[in-house]
Amino acid sequence: MIVHMFVLGVDPGLSRCGYGVVQRKDGKEIAIAAGVIETPADMETPYRLTLLRDEIRELIVDYKPEVVAIERVLFQRNVATAISVGQAIGIAMTEGISAGCKVIEFSPNEVKQAVAGHGGADKEEMEKMVQILLGIQTPLQPVDAADALALALCFLARQRVEA
Amino acid sequence: MIVHMFVLGVDPGLSRCGYGVVQRKDGKEIAIAAGVIETPADMETPYRLTLLRDEIRELIVDYKPEVVAIERVLFQRNVATAISVGQAIGIAMTEGISAGCKVIEFSPNEVKQAVAGHGGADKEEMEKMVQILLGIQTPLQPVDAADALALALCFLARQRVEA
Repeated sequence: MIVHMFVLGVDPGLSRCGYGVVQRKDGKEIAIAAGVIETPADMETPYRLTLLRDEIRELIVDYKPEVVAIERVLFQRNVATAISVGQAIGIAMTEGISAGCKVIEFSPNEVKQAVAGHGGADKEEMEKMVQILLGIQTPLQPVDAADALALALCFLARQRVEA
Repeated sequence: MIVHMFVLGVDPGLSRCGYGVVQRKDGKEIAIAAGVIETPADMETPYRLTLLRDEIRELIVDYKPEVVAIERVLFQRNVATAISVGQAIGIAMTEGISAGCKVIEFSPNEVKQAVAGHGGADKEEMEKMVQILLGIQTPLQPVDAADALALALCFLARQRVEA
């Protein structure tokens, strides 16, 4: 039985990539870290991606998650955005695998289902549920960080059901 | 004046990723290597991407290109394909930057313009031109490798014009 577990949630993006680390300790979830990795729009894409990779690598080194949970992106405004999100996902996946983590994707619907109990939950409801589940009093800022924490919670909730 | 230069062309893809290494030596272009990196469809995406990354890394270690030229993908059938191509592009870009290469993207139109002299060149014409420019007698197989060689040639042709 695993009583301690760290999960890194990643809401992938090249301009803004949300991250959230949740620890399950003796059956209780605790937020360890959350934030957003931003890369400058005036930097060339290969350098932005390398910057993103270094930041994700550092998070994995610092928090040693067993699992990296990444949002499975199903819709995008256009091809350029989808390519750019795909680039960020690819970086997060390979960094996770290289560090020996389990890497898993969840669709927005799966995250809503696991965290709010129904797939139709809106952004506000999701943020509220993340706050409640993690025992956080203040509003979660920025929203990308809340999304990333929800991804980490999704993995832990599903594991609980399967256990 | 650089008389020797290695360029790695990458036609990005998760299932099939074409590569081609072209050397410019004393003003003449020579094909050094060309092929396709394939990753198994029944393998999970994070592992496929890690495999692709390792293969690209090995190409860079083996051939020490100064430049990695990647196709700029502008159109895709759907979001899932765009995400998947984006993942492969992200891997190629970060591997190039990490190895100290110049990483540059070319649109299909730019490649056609540089290799065939006009943006409307079809696949057959492009393959023919790649063969002629590299002095290759036999048909280039597979086509992904020809596309990758064309990307490398595109960089060298443009550099010649700018010089």
